[in-house]
Amino acid sequence: MDKVVLALDLGGTNARFAAVLPDGSILTRMRVRTPKTEDGDQILGMIVNSFQTIRKEVGDKYEAVAIAAAVPAVIRAADGILSGLPNLPALEGVDIGGALRDGLGLKTYLENDATAATIGEHWIGVSKGIDNVIGVTLGTGVGGGLIFNGSPFRGKDGTAGEIGHVCVEPEGHPCGCGSRGCVEQYASGTAIIRMAREAGLEAASSWDVYELAINGDEKAAAVFSKMGKYLGIVFAGLVNVLNPEMIVIGGGVSGGWDLFIHRVEREVIERAFRDPARRAKIVRAGLGEDAGILGAARVAFDLMA
Amino acid sequence: MDKVVLALDLGGTNARFAAVLPDGSILTRMRVRTPKTEDGDQILGMIVNSFQTIRKEVGDKYEAVAIAAAVPAVIRAADGILSGLPNLPALEGVDIGGALRDGLGLKTYLENDATAATIGEHWIGVSKGIDNVIGVTLGTGVGGGLIFNGSPFRGKDGTAGEIGHVCVEPEGHPCGCGSRGCVEQYASGTAIIRMAREAGLEAASSWDVYELAINGDEKAAAVFSKMGKYLGIVFAGLVNVLNPEMIVIGGGVSGGWDLFIHRVEREVIERAFRDPARRAKIVRAGLGEDAGILGAARVAFDLMA
Repeated sequence: MDKVVLALDLGGTNARFAAVLPDGSILTRMRVRTPKTEDGDQILGMIVNSFQTIRKEVGDKYEAVAIAAAVPAVIRAADGILSGLPNLPALEGVDIGGALRDGLGLKTYLENDATAATIGEHWIGVSKGIDNVIGVTLGTGVGGGLIFNGSPFRGKDGTAGEIGHVCVEPEGHPCGCGSRGCVEQYASGTAIIRMAREAGLEAASSWDVYELAINGDEKAAAVFSKMGKYLGIVFAGLVNVLNPEMIVIGGGVSGGWDLFIHRVEREVIERAFRDPARRAKIVRAGLGEDAGILGAARVAFDLMA
Repeated sequence: MDKVVLALDLGGTNARFAAVLPDGSILTRMRVRTPKTEDGDQILGMIVNSFQTIRKEVGDKYEAVAIAAAVPAVIRAADGILSGLPNLPALEGVDIGGALRDGLGLKTYLENDATAATIGEHWIGVSKGIDNVIGVTLGTGVGGGLIFNGSPFRGKDGTAGEIGHVCVEPEGHPCGCGSRGCVEQYASGTAIIRMAREAGLEAASSWDVYELAINGDEKAAAVFSKMGKYLGIVFAGLVNVLNPEMIVIGGGVSGGWDLFIHRVEREVIERAFRDPARRAKIVRAGLGEDAGILGAARVAFDLMA
């Protein structure tokens, strides 16, 4: 009987569920609104119920061998406790892995969402077969993941990859993490809206700013150029420190690609050492919204093997 | 017969040679002035002659099995060509490994000097037994080396570790690497002299600035505080991205430790995520001037094994 992993990509707005086969194909999928609540148990309840639904849909033709969840959080490797969830504060300090294990009776594997997306792309996406990869997710915040020597790199406590919280302006805009001038404050969807408003534009979403820019608004274009500048500064540093073969950019805000990528590339070429700058291909992620689910599932398949 | 590696740590001012045993003990050593010349062959001639002298001193009781050299350069892994040598421009584009192999008839291994120092400390110094280490060398410039999962990490082309060229001020002081505002422009010996002069102090060396600071000169103290601030900003970013267990600071300028380390630690605590910030021990290197020689020798022993 074929094995499946039941996988979740948990976001602040939506939770996406899927049953993933060992070759990375998706058997069935489901999207549920993430409850807006301060009660972590309510979110956990939704997750357990949704997994039960998915499990029923998978039926008896497949063996559900594990639960995998990509979460927008720093996950402490030692005990699976979550922290750093500005968009899901109800799960701060929660042992979601334990709750899912108890609720569903399956082995459970957690992964940071941006690291999961990086692993997904490395499995069956644009960075397949590439040994040294930096993944960046541009969404409400800026996340990151690392592949070194062909394997995910998570650091001593499992918290590595927080590329969004590299400082690019020492006295810059305050960041939710407690620091100032993190690149997340210049390259996330939230930052695009803020920078557009600072420039006197009306914008309810980063999409609004994108629309203005492609319709010729110079202030809106300047917002994306600023985003590209700061992303480029961070990438140049990462190129000098890590000499990666590829930088993969995904997440909803990467939809503005044409408006920021040239500035990113220019900063990297101007600021990084020549050989590693030429080496690092900067490419757009290929798996869209599935990257996180696939990466989480891959982690589960790997750790069960 | 015991094996020895004949090792060199090549600096812009001095070249240090030693014969290193497999347990890291040093049999004999020698220091030679690096010729001030634009003629790379003159430097190579000095190096070959010095290695021959060391080899004679070692005599017949030991078998010289390899040459190892730590060089202040980016070394392209594919062909061993050196680049990025602001203090030894005569060796730019030179295949020093090939020249030593031809001149001495021994296998030759090259390593970036800061990476070599990081490996040396990891072998028999302060980071022995620690699997995830970032090494930083504060000298004329700022160098760096990485140990991930217990092994040196050099990236795709062998150029990784250039921590000195992470940007900390987007429009900051121009850097010899072609970028602006690299941390090397705020935390190297050269930078300390420049910042002191900018503050109206007379200083011929970073040592002069140190002397002024410990004798109560507030402007000199502010220079070291500024250095600590920018080092701390880079370390906070590295802590967030790499979640290291230890950051080892060596090099001549680390002698000013008491004047900058508190500021470094404060920036890391204030700017990095809590768990990885608490994890990363910031410690002073233990092997002094021998770190580079020992690290280079260790690389040779490893690659021959």
